[in-house]
Parts: sequence; structure tokens; C-alpha cells
Amino acid sequence: MTVYQASATAPVNIATLKYWGKRDKTLNLPTNSSISVTLSQDDLRTLTTASCSADFEQDQLWLNGALESLSSERTQACLKDLRTLRKGVEHKDASLPKLSEYKLHIVSENNFPTAAGLASSAAGFAALVFSIAKLYQLPQDLSEISKIARKGSGSACRSLFGGYVAWEMGESPDGEDSKAVEVAPLEHWPNMKALILVVSDDKKDVPSTSGMQSTVATSDLFNHRINELVPQRFEEMKSAILKKDFPTFAELTMKDSNSFHAVCLDSFPPIFYLNDTSKKIIKLIHKINEIEGKTIVAYTYDAGPNAVLYYEAENEDKILSGLKPYFENIQGFKQPQTVTSFDFKSFIPEITGVSKIIATKIGEGPKETSISLINESGLPK
Amino acid sequence: MTVYQASATAPVNIATLKYWGKRDKTLNLPTNSSISVTLSQDDLRTLTTASCSADFEQDQLWLNGALESLSSERTQACLKDLRTLRKGVEHKDASLPKLSEYKLHIVSENNFPTAAGLASSAAGFAALVFSIAKLYQLPQDLSEISKIARKGSGSACRSLFGGYVAWEMGESPDGEDSKAVEVAPLEHWPNMKALILVVSDDKKDVPSTSGMQSTVATSDLFNHRINELVPQRFEEMKSAILKKDFPTFAELTMKDSNSFHAVCLDSFPPIFYLNDTSKKIIKLIHKINEIEGKTIVAYTYDAGPNAVLYYEAENEDKILSGLKPYFENIQGFKQPQTVTSFDFKSFIPEITGVSKIIATKIGEGPKETSISLINESGLPK
Repeated sequence: MTVYQASATAPVNIATLKYWGKRDKTLNLPTNSSISVTLSQDDLRTLTTASCSADFEQDQLWLNGALESLSSERTQACLKDLRTLRKGVEHKDASLPKLSEYKLHIVSENNFPTAAGLASSAAGFAALVFSIAKLYQLPQDLSEISKIARKGSGSACRSLFGGYVAWEMGESPDGEDSKAVEVAPLEHWPNMKALILVVSDDKKDVPSTSGMQSTVATSDLFNHRINELVPQRFEEMKSAILKKDFPTFAELTMKDSNSFHAVCLDSFPPIFYLNDTSKKIIKLIHKINEIEGKTIVAYTYDAGPNAVLYYEAENEDKILSGLKPYFENIQGFKQPQTVTSFDFKSFIPEITGVSKIIATKIGEGPKETSISLINESGLPK
Repeated sequence: MTVYQASATAPVNIATLKYWGKRDKTLNLPTNSSISVTLSQDDLRTLTTASCSADFEQDQLWLNGALESLSSERTQACLKDLRTLRKGVEHKDASLPKLSEYKLHIVSENNFPTAAGLASSAAGFAALVFSIAKLYQLPQDLSEISKIARKGSGSACRSLFGGYVAWEMGESPDGEDSKAVEVAPLEHWPNMKALILVVSDDKKDVPSTSGMQSTVATSDLFNHRINELVPQRFEEMKSAILKKDFPTFAELTMKDSNSFHAVCLDSFPPIFYLNDTSKKIIKLIHKINEIEGKTIVAYTYDAGPNAVLYYEAENEDKILSGLKPYFENIQGFKQPQTVTSFDFKSFIPEITGVSKIIATKIGEGPKETSISLINESGLPK
């Protein structure tokens, strides 16, 4: 049995300018451009092996050890596009094996708990699309490939790049100009760190796709956000990244997170992703910046209560000092070298509800790897 | 000793179209018009006796048994305006006593706990201004008097009327056209009931005056709300009241509450008045309406976590049935006649944090009363 295979890892990204709203649900075309920071794969990544063989009988996907359906319209759209591009390659060189006609076996694993609400679909679709692109030896560049990942999960397109990434919304109805591009590579501003405070939640509010649809359809503030506010913020944030202007980057990040949650609250019925724990963390972060006298840390929240904090490495100790009174006994908390003199507990007596902390940093884009998750029969190892 | 006195009661009002934002902080001139329902004084009212005498040595105020300062700029503005109007009366009829030159003793009592965050300042300033207007036998109509109450506390101007009340923002820089007017009297739509769910809170977020200032200065969504959304909603809500169209009135009420809290969240730093209890009540209300297949109850939230529910009397049993699984043991809860078949607890397992329930209804405006809180020496009884 000849089994062709390629393996790759892809990162999680956390938006600093939020994607919220689709202008085309099938193609995952957004109502606004967005920006994200790619996180280190040392801490959060999906590893995917894509294989194909004339002997495979059907497309199959194993995710974290369990057989998963590949039948979703979105996954099918990705596979179709990838096979079309492979056909183009085969058309140019008739000596190549007709991989586009073979069934695929895909095995995928995350190095972090999927359930924690950590944007696993972005890493997942990026790894899926990137590994198949490698298997098919596609010549397209990453922005081209990102358009395919976008059809799987909008924010997945941003996980095709490391560092600082923009998803340009584009204008075309077919989505051909809605793609990820690099704003700046990791090396440009490498000391960006991220701390994820995993917040336990009673029950997640509406899933992001239906939440977006509801906001687009019902929020009276939404159009103002996407038409008047985000376009300017998009340029300002790119500029802050290029200048490595942390205070501006951080303030834009916090404001955009708040703006996104505001239009969720303005939806009807209202959508709430922040809970009382999230809100206390927001107050704490503003207090840390206030005490410092400048903005040294930013919060951002996706469609859930988890906080992601961004800061520059040289300020880590100050930030950990502010978090220590609340989180020093939480799994993953790194003790600061110094202790703050400010009595945080007199300001916020306690913050319960944080279950885990993941300390990470800015990271690189997808990488091919020699680690394979598939055995010689084309099944999960 | 000759002591002149007049006593009056004034109601609380709860806005259905929110006042949030001042264009003039000294004059309490709002950035948008607002609408409220006046609540019954049987349940929530301030009783104030205003007295004056040539023998009094200074202006004094006793509030709920304690001597309070009258020195705030806002209270002084009210007293100054009232004395100016009294001077006009005295000027026209020289036989009248010169009450405008006498010091005032004012005694005021609420029939509800001030601390519960129940808009007590609206009832308080309305009773203060109305009782002094009666003491001074001012000929001005209630809209004129409402402009004076407005200087004490913006929303107090709406407590000068019963039933359905609008505060027209006006345009004039001196505030002469920023006044309360009746949209419809109590008798027009008398079956409007209100249920107040008092929600305990760790700590109130910023006071409303500084919150408003922050929103006006920092929210990127705020101008769109006041310029584009509220003016239209103001007309629609008045029209719904005149037509007694409860579903439209209720939907506008809920949307405007959400829009107000959205611009608070969009402020920087963000302002949060809704807590996790408030959010669960919002979800419960949407579920009650969904089960009924039409909108029979509305929620609204001021600058705090307390929910105020509006509904028509004929639907009370349905609403209480939906609330019963969570609140039947809370002080003030009235048992419904029937029990719902819907399993609410499978939808929301529990709602903790409600400490008290006040069942009330639409009510009348300020009234003179023969009950006096002052003895013959001009001191609190």
C-alpha cells in the first residue's frame, strides 16, 4: 500500500481587533477586517497528519483520538478547494501521482484541552489546510492558502502566519480578496507575551456563528462599529505594531474587545460572553496600568469569559505582581520576582472562577514536521 | 413663632428610554430625550414637608431622620430658582409674606430603603421641589417646576408627572426647553404593572454622574446611540404608549436598556452595571416571552443590577409562573394562581442574588398631603 503523507503544526491566534459578523456565511466573508497575534506553538498548537492513498475508501478524520465527521459543508469546501489546486498541479505535470483523486485520511491532535474555549478551530483548520497543501505540494503562497482555511473557520486564515497578522476583509463577493497577510513577523516585535486566564463558565452563551448572525441582524450599534470605527482602528493598530508602540496597541486592543462585547450586548436577545470573573479581571488590568502610570498590559476577550492578556516581556514581573494576590495558587501561575506594594485586595477583594493559567508568547506560523500521526496502513498510530 | 409649611409626596420613575449622558453637567441637560413610567406611591414614594419661618436661622434638611447637607451645588440651584419664582409672586402682591427671604427647614422620608439603588434621588428632588413650590404657592405649571427638579437630579424632572412621561432634552444652552411633559396619564393605560427584583451587588460600579461623563468622553458608539438611534426610538415609544401596544413598547424598552448598557461597556475603562444575576434574569424574561409566543414582559436596568419588569396586569400570572421556580421564597414574591408546565430549571438551573421583590404598578404624580413631618417649632416630629 502506497500512502502519501505530510504532517504540520499550526498555531492558535487571538484577535486584538475582533472578527464579529459575516457578510457571507457560506464563504465566511467578514463584515470587517481583523488583526491577531499568533501564539507560540510550544504551548498551543494542532498537529495534523494528512495522508492519501489509492487504497483508502473514504475521507476520514480522527481528532484527538476520536473519529469525527468530515461531512460539514465547511470542511467539504476546504477539501474541494485543495483538490482543485492539486488538479492544477497534476495537469501541469502528468508524471505526478493523481493524489487529487485519492481519499484522505487525516489525524489531528491538540496539545491543549479543546473544551477550554481556546480558539481551537482556528489552529485546527489551519493545520488541516496547511498539511494537505504540503501533501499536495501546492505552489500557492500562504495568503492563497489562507483563503481556503477561511472557508473552514474564519479566524483560521490568520493562523497561517506567525507574528502579527491581518485578515483583510476584501470586497469581492466570491471572497478571492478576503485573506490573511502578515503585518509584521515575529522577529519585528518578539517580546510580546500572552497570558491566558481560563475562566470557568456555567454555560457558554450562543456559539459564535449564530451569535454573529444575531448581532448582524439585530444590533442597532453594529453597523456603526463596522463601517465607522473598525476601518480606522485597523489602520491605527497596524501602525502601532509597525512602530512597536505598546500603549497604543494595548489601548486599541482593549477598546476593540469592549466594542465587540458591546455590540453583543446590543443584540436582541442580548449576548453575554463576559461574566463577573471576566469583569473583575478587566478592572484589575486597568488598575495595574493606572498604578504603573502607563499602559503596560492589555486584555482581550473572545466569545467566552477567558481573558487573554498581552504585555511586553520586560513588564512581566509587574503584571504578575498584580495578579499574584488572586491567582498565585492557580495552576500555571508563575511567581513574580518582586512583590507589589499596592494593596490590590482593598480594591478588589477576590476574584474567583479562574481555573487555569497558560503563560505563552507570540509565535510562528504553521510548520511542516517529521512527526507523523499515521501508521503505514494509513490509520492513526 | 409663625411657621409656614406644605407637605407633598412624589413618586419614583423608572426609565424605559434611558437618560445617559449630560451635555451640561451643571444644568443637568441631557444628550438625549428619555421616557419613563411613574411608579405607584403606595409602594415607593418620598414624603417631604417644606417649611419656612422668619425665625429659622439657616436652611436645613433632615432626610430619613438624619441631618443632611443642603450645600451641594445642585440643591442650592433648586432653592435659588424656587426663591426667585417666589420673589416674582411677592412682587405682584405686596401683601404676601416674604417667604423668599426666610430660611427653609425641610424634612423628608422615603417609604423604601434608600440604599437599594431604587432611583431615590428622583423621588427626593421631585418631592423637595414640589413641596417648596406648594409652600411658595407658585403659579407655574408642572413642566416649569420640572426644570427646577432637573437641576437637582436629571431624572427627577420626570417624577413631576404620573403615568407615562417624557423628558424632552431641548436645545437651549440655558435649559429652558429641557423639561418633563406627560405622554399619557395613568388613566390612559392603567393596567401597567412593575416588578422590581432587587439584586445584591458586591460593589456598585461608578456613580451615574461620573459614569455618564466617562461614556460621553470615551465611548465610540455613544454618539451613534444619541444622534441616530434614540431620536427615532423616542417617537416610536411615545407612539406605542399612545396605542397601548405592549409588544412594541416592551421591545423598545428592552432594546434601549441593552443599548445603554452597551455604551457603558464601550466606555474606557468599561462600566458594568449588569452582573451575572441580571444577565440570567434577562435570559429568563426572553424565555418567558418565547414560550408565550409574544412579548408579554419587558426588563429594564438602570445604573445597577436591579431588574425592573413591566407587564400588563392580565399577564401577571404567566410572568409570576415563570419567576416562581427561582424566586418563590424571596421576600415580596406573590404566588401565581397557576403553575407553568415549562421546565424552566432545565433552561436556567438557578438564579441566586435576588434579595427582595417589590411588586408595584404605574402611579400618579406628586400630591400635596396633610401629613406633616414638622412640629410647631419647625423641627422634625
